[in-house]
Amino acid sequence: MSSTRHIRGSGLKQADTPAVPLGETLAKVRADIREGLYTGHTSGVARDHVQGNVVILPKALAADFLRYCQRNPKPCPLLAVSEPGEPMLPKLGADIDIRTDVPRYRVWRRGELVDEPTDIRALWRDDLVSFVIGCSFSFEQALLDAGLAMRHIDQNRNVAMYRTNIATEPAGPFHGPLVVSMRPLRAAAAIRAIQVTSRFPDVHGAPVHIGDPALIGIKDLALPDYGDPVDVMRDELPVFWACGVTPQAAIAQARPEFCITHAPGAMLITDLLNHQLASF
Amino acid sequence: MSSTRHIRGSGLKQADTPAVPLGETLAKVRADIREGLYTGHTSGVARDHVQGNVVILPKALAADFLRYCQRNPKPCPLLAVSEPGEPMLPKLGADIDIRTDVPRYRVWRRGELVDEPTDIRALWRDDLVSFVIGCSFSFEQALLDAGLAMRHIDQNRNVAMYRTNIATEPAGPFHGPLVVSMRPLRAAAAIRAIQVTSRFPDVHGAPVHIGDPALIGIKDLALPDYGDPVDVMRDELPVFWACGVTPQAAIAQARPEFCITHAPGAMLITDLLNHQLASF
Repeated sequence: MSSTRHIRGSGLKQADTPAVPLGETLAKVRADIREGLYTGHTSGVARDHVQGNVVILPKALAADFLRYCQRNPKPCPLLAVSEPGEPMLPKLGADIDIRTDVPRYRVWRRGELVDEPTDIRALWRDDLVSFVIGCSFSFEQALLDAGLAMRHIDQNRNVAMYRTNIATEPAGPFHGPLVVSMRPLRAAAAIRAIQVTSRFPDVHGAPVHIGDPALIGIKDLALPDYGDPVDVMRDELPVFWACGVTPQAAIAQARPEFCITHAPGAMLITDLLNHQLASF
Repeated sequence: MSSTRHIRGSGLKQADTPAVPLGETLAKVRADIREGLYTGHTSGVARDHVQGNVVILPKALAADFLRYCQRNPKPCPLLAVSEPGEPMLPKLGADIDIRTDVPRYRVWRRGELVDEPTDIRALWRDDLVSFVIGCSFSFEQALLDAGLAMRHIDQNRNVAMYRTNIATEPAGPFHGPLVVSMRPLRAAAAIRAIQVTSRFPDVHGAPVHIGDPALIGIKDLALPDYGDPVDVMRDELPVFWACGVTPQAAIAQARPEFCITHAPGAMLITDLLNHQLASF
């Protein structure tokens, strides 16, 4: 294993130890991100806090995308939607500015990646609507808290993600396959993981599949479409969760004239605490 | 399929249609059982009501058996324990007499089956303690209510049960393997079934295993140790729950001088409603 890993297709290096140490205060993390001092992935950073996938679209497409999320709540659980042109997200924190508070962004024009800035103030428009979608980091923290180890974390890899043959429900120009993340677990751990993640519907909730990958159109677990492969041992089952890469795949299909997302792994860190998302 | 099925080793015939029709009032069912008019299995009878496995032991062994149940809550979830010599079970119903309210009993002396009466008033002793243990009928009703079909019910078979290589925690003379019941389910249904049964810890709760039977010492799913085999289709996973036959296997190991149990499938029907067992 090298000491840094490439997040596939992202241009980002995932360091073995995040630049912002664990236990660092949220205020310091956010200030560093805002000032462009921290531009890396956020796995394990401010780990008690909910992180989110970010999609920013012109108002003309926002209603279609909102319906797409509503129809596909497992891959696209919406944590917040902004007012048009409003960069603040008060539902997610007292002082979150979507233009500065993501470590690294991706800017898309007609489906083509054109830039990876660390600040989008210069690109802001009065018609932009921000969507923040729940992220697996929250349920992974719940799994760790429940004593369940995950191989990709132990091996410091990005989680393995796959396009399935399950179509999402389309809305306007947005459509495409359900993308899933996979974590190999022994049977008793898989059962526990289903119990734990069922309590977190806002961050993908319970798995969508367990066992034979071919049943959801995955030909080879060793060849993920995104992220890094991990071994599945003989006494383990592959367990598949709906993944926040799904909306990015739908946006790639829709090819909107303008769109901004977070760069893979470099999420928006919110004021919310993971345990606040637990359902009862 | 024949129109009646033999419950393996029980001497009972399981009719396609129970003699007491579904929807029959609990009072009528209990009166018929008490008068010896209904001596069959209770699957699907008074289906909203909690049913229980019954174990009746002399007081000298009761403390050991109580500890055995406490240490093995998945296979032996205790719904009620009587006072010594007390035949009534007020926790389970206003008018439940354990000596008459089970359709058919089994009487054991030093581990040998010696009789299968429909009434045990003549055998009653002042030192007998009754244990009522939760039964899978309750969680099966919850699964049916959740829209999940089960093959053994559709095919009117007894559920398939297997001895595993998982040892229960011993207590006094009681020890032996964990016995499990198996229901084949497609992945999405298996995940839903884990969610549904997790809410019912008093009736075995969540599964103990899913997938490869060999990992828990089951060599051939087609050869259950109790009950009837059912097919597992290529797109299904076998899902295994802890089973109330486990304490009977432990009693067979302990060979108590005297013991009474229910006959397989012929359970005690209580006043409790299944939904009252749901945890929140």
